[in-house]
Amino acid sequence: MISKTPKPPYYAVIFTSFKAGYSKEYDETSKRMIALVSKQQGFLGIESSRDEIGITISYWDSLDSIKHWKNEFEHKIARQRGRDEWYSEFKVRIALVERDYSFVK
Amino acid sequence: MISKTPKPPYYAVIFTSFKAGYSKEYDETSKRMIALVSKQQGFLGIESSRDEIGITISYWDSLDSIKHWKNEFEHKIARQRGRDEWYSEFKVRIALVERDYSFVK
Repeated sequence: MISKTPKPPYYAVIFTSFKAGYSKEYDETSKRMIALVSKQQGFLGIESSRDEIGITISYWDSLDSIKHWKNEFEHKIARQRGRDEWYSEFKVRIALVERDYSFVK
Repeated sequence: MISKTPKPPYYAVIFTSFKAGYSKEYDETSKRMIALVSKQQGFLGIESSRDEIGITISYWDSLDSIKHWKNEFEHKIARQRGRDEWYSEFKVRIALVERDYSFVK
């Protein structure tokens, strides 16, 4: 689903990744993280797609909320396993959304 | 491929979309647009993934370069066809990347 984010400005965390291989635990953790992130303070939405490359974008009200999520206990453990086991490469970009527009047929 | 963008700040254009259905012409135009965008002034990289939802992020040196690409002749025609034929829904977000970090195993 395309996230129904509020009027800008708001923040986007762009996570682009390659997986090291298939992992059932990755898939389970990924689902759990989506459920968990949705309950965080300042969370505005998430969009995620994977073919060869994976792109996940979460939207936030502030840098503080992003930092809070980064340090959330279960998320910290998942992030560490991501580095140790699941990803061969990733990049995180923190960006301020200045403008947006939508099209719906 | 994960784009080798320069040190922030730089811009990201986040394009999130749902297609109306399969179209061979969409696939051809999509490839042509990726070749074309890569030659534009101020272009820094592109990352794209599609499963149900499609996410394409292009990176730019400035708002001017983004505007220039938006008005590029072939791209304008493709964008109009996107609205008329190919997409059921999309959202465009223009964001200033303030920070980034990478992980490579």
